[in-house]
Amino acid sequence: MGRIDHYDDPAAPRPNSLVPSANVLVTNDQGQVLLIRRSDNGNWALPGGGMDLGESIVACGVRETLEETGVTCQVTGLLGIFTDPKHLIEYTSNGEVRQEFSVVFTAAYISGRPTPSSESSQVRWVDPDQLADLRMDRSMRMRVDLWLQGADMPHLG
Amino acid sequence: MGRIDHYDDPAAPRPNSLVPSANVLVTNDQGQVLLIRRSDNGNWALPGGGMDLGESIVACGVRETLEETGVTCQVTGLLGIFTDPKHLIEYTSNGEVRQEFSVVFTAAYISGRPTPSSESSQVRWVDPDQLADLRMDRSMRMRVDLWLQGADMPHLG
Repeated sequence: MGRIDHYDDPAAPRPNSLVPSANVLVTNDQGQVLLIRRSDNGNWALPGGGMDLGESIVACGVRETLEETGVTCQVTGLLGIFTDPKHLIEYTSNGEVRQEFSVVFTAAYISGRPTPSSESSQVRWVDPDQLADLRMDRSMRMRVDLWLQGADMPHLG
Repeated sequence: MGRIDHYDDPAAPRPNSLVPSANVLVTNDQGQVLLIRRSDNGNWALPGGGMDLGESIVACGVRETLEETGVTCQVTGLLGIFTDPKHLIEYTSNGEVRQEFSVVFTAAYISGRPTPSSESSQVRWVDPDQLADLRMDRSMRMRVDLWLQGADMPHLG
């Protein structure tokens, strides 16, 4: 499924969908961050995805991380809530245009080894000082930079 | 519109909808909490409601508070994220059954006077020691009690 991220783009299609999703910033004992390379657009990203009926948003984050990385984690905190109406995500296969609604958790590594999936062509533990070298969508870059800055309060936006 | 809250009820209808909503715990200079009495079920509650496309979840909380109470507020923090799949909200008029997805902010009073609306038959500033006397749905009681307990971390569930 092709995915295009639009930001503050007057030519973007209008949003027609709102799906709460979770992303997870998992760190291991060495302080490395778990990242995937997205199959749909080649960008590096935190694992995550849309919430299903019947699960909580925390359970969604743990489930999506396991599916996309092979790693089991435990949520430890909240990096922020990101619901900027200027960020739209277009799925080219079915015409869905989602307005961003992403809850980003921090989490600790529990078990498992980085393992690619249909949604993640690569999965890697990345040293914090190498994060800047990886290509990311601007919205994902903003989340990672917020974590690097170590804010006291979760981002609320 | 009639509203029924189901909790961990095997006889409840199955969820068919997920609408992110914001609730806001607004306090004034006297430390009182802004509450509404819901028109649909007579329970006391924090103001709030479902997010619209084109706004952020923070803007949703401020807008719903103004609509339901006549009070303008500014969000100052996060009480928690509440997405318990065991809590379902049934709207009897159209068969919609939402799974709970509520982001609860704390906020400071800015301006305006408590004013009822079609969704709120009463609007009141309530002293913290009077909160226990008001009838609330269990999920709303849990949010208010969490605030009274003054936890350091937002609730993530």
